[in-house]
Amino acid sequence: MKALVFKDNELRLESDYPRPRRSRGEALVRVTVAGICATDLEIVKGYMEFEGVLGHEFTGVVEEDTSGRWLGKRVAGEINAGCGGCGWCEAGLANHCPGRTVLGIAGRDGAFAEYLTLPEANLHALPDGISDQEAVFVEPLAAAFEILEQVDISSKDSVCVLGDGRLGLLTAQVLAGRTESLLAAGRHREKLAILQARGIKTALGGARPVGIGSKQNVSRFNGETGEQLHEFDFVVDCTGDAGGLEAALDLVRPRGTIILKTTAAGQRPADLNRVVVDEITLIGSRCGPFPPAIQALAKKEIDVKNMISAVFPFDEAHRAMRAAAQQGALKVLLTMAR
Amino acid sequence: MKALVFKDNELRLESDYPRPRRSRGEALVRVTVAGICATDLEIVKGYMEFEGVLGHEFTGVVEEDTSGRWLGKRVAGEINAGCGGCGWCEAGLANHCPGRTVLGIAGRDGAFAEYLTLPEANLHALPDGISDQEAVFVEPLAAAFEILEQVDISSKDSVCVLGDGRLGLLTAQVLAGRTESLLAAGRHREKLAILQARGIKTALGGARPVGIGSKQNVSRFNGETGEQLHEFDFVVDCTGDAGGLEAALDLVRPRGTIILKTTAAGQRPADLNRVVVDEITLIGSRCGPFPPAIQALAKKEIDVKNMISAVFPFDEAHRAMRAAAQQGALKVLLTMAR
Repeated sequence: MKALVFKDNELRLESDYPRPRRSRGEALVRVTVAGICATDLEIVKGYMEFEGVLGHEFTGVVEEDTSGRWLGKRVAGEINAGCGGCGWCEAGLANHCPGRTVLGIAGRDGAFAEYLTLPEANLHALPDGISDQEAVFVEPLAAAFEILEQVDISSKDSVCVLGDGRLGLLTAQVLAGRTESLLAAGRHREKLAILQARGIKTALGGARPVGIGSKQNVSRFNGETGEQLHEFDFVVDCTGDAGGLEAALDLVRPRGTIILKTTAAGQRPADLNRVVVDEITLIGSRCGPFPPAIQALAKKEIDVKNMISAVFPFDEAHRAMRAAAQQGALKVLLTMAR
Repeated sequence: MKALVFKDNELRLESDYPRPRRSRGEALVRVTVAGICATDLEIVKGYMEFEGVLGHEFTGVVEEDTSGRWLGKRVAGEINAGCGGCGWCEAGLANHCPGRTVLGIAGRDGAFAEYLTLPEANLHALPDGISDQEAVFVEPLAAAFEILEQVDISSKDSVCVLGDGRLGLLTAQVLAGRTESLLAAGRHREKLAILQARGIKTALGGARPVGIGSKQNVSRFNGETGEQLHEFDFVVDCTGDAGGLEAALDLVRPRGTIILKTTAAGQRPADLNRVVVDEITLIGSRCGPFPPAIQALAKKEIDVKNMISAVFPFDEAHRAMRAAAQQGALKVLLTMAR
């Protein structure tokens, strides 16, 4: 089959890569559309030391399965496949199984190919209201919904989402459904416009976005020192940048919470003394639950169509990867001809 | 009055330093015993850019007050004095008031002197069962109790306390009252012996202590990869060392919690990608509640007598500071002659 393979530090479009073999309990899925994620771009730089077929965001149709219940169904798929026998898997937390494989990231060939395999337990049927292209966003959107599994955000909490990349735009839209006081901060006017069109307040700027962290917002805790005050109850770092944590520390209030979504190569400059002195809670957040993501897409609560920068046929996968890596790119999709 | 003053990068024992003036709502406290904390040693290295009388751990007797309710009482005192007018102070969180002063740390002369002032609201009367020397431990012990205000540790949770310095020994004793599965890890056999004498399991080693993080403890989550597994539900970093966070990340399980007690000069080498991928929660923890600390000392639940390395008369404060800075030192006290 055709597949985009990363091996020996080289990205190759192969035409006769072996079709993956289905293990017991698994399904064989024919990929229809796949999405390029920042993690794919990081892997090509050496992150995770993965070799094999790239890609973990996809829509597909089940062509073989174990139980017979999935045949012919259009599906999205969770990317972590647990060993099935450990305490984590038994607790329903296969995402953290130490023996897990991760589609296109660790120990399992991915979605930039004509076929992939996943355990049936990872599959989610897609309702008709979600197109193949929209469904590629289920996986990253689930990662945004993970935040709501981890922290309790109420309508009165002030939240700042840092970063207007793909995950930042999804996260801002998810959290806008929870709080009246949301600010999305980023560096790209045209990306923030997608949020503005949905009534979300935005701030344009660099690591310290314009219009926040300044005096205008300090009325809640106006001490007498006149120093810059930290403001937000929650700050979500979706910058994808090693400097995101430092920016988040500039914006969170004492005893506030920072949700870290960014995995970045290299170490991050951050004054962790501030975490101690201000008693900040810092929560790492990764993959999330598919059902609320599918439901939100079916109800058109999240705008993903405006987040598609380009669609390439699979034979142009190299061009697609370059397009995805360009400054300002949002989601780049690969479509599989039949 | 006599006072140990840090100014112009120099530590001086002065004999005619001005006695502090009591503001409205404050009390004048005659210091009887004071304790030297790691923070004092850090300040002398430049941490917090503080100048003035050092010291924030003390026992004293109230000689003047505003309300008349404290006169003659033997007291311990909380070290953060809020502005009294901001939202934080109104919420009872003066610890985080942006306009706060902190005894001997920020904007307020400290306890290494014959007299200090604090708001009456900061004072706690000491029961007779606690000696002046023991009461010096109320403040650091309260910082250990702060952990229980922040996280819910149950009897089945596995907890590792990293670091066998003053705060590590107090923290291990506090948490040993909550869980059956506690391990205190440190580098000093003689310090860990204080915990062993109280039935607490210990591990001797460096950043990766002997006997933990190895295969012997992995039975709970035995994946199939054979890689080193992370084990503890909670890890508390009391190392006081910039490498403590990295060691804590080696020991905590996915979705586990690290409590950061260490403020260290300089940035810390730590792979924060692990926080994201393993969805770790990292909680900064600072000063804590005095009442449970006073109660625990009164009930002799915490052994602090064995943590006193040396007692110096105040005139030998310079020698005392040197003794406290020595490798292996635990608590060094200063006593005030009358």
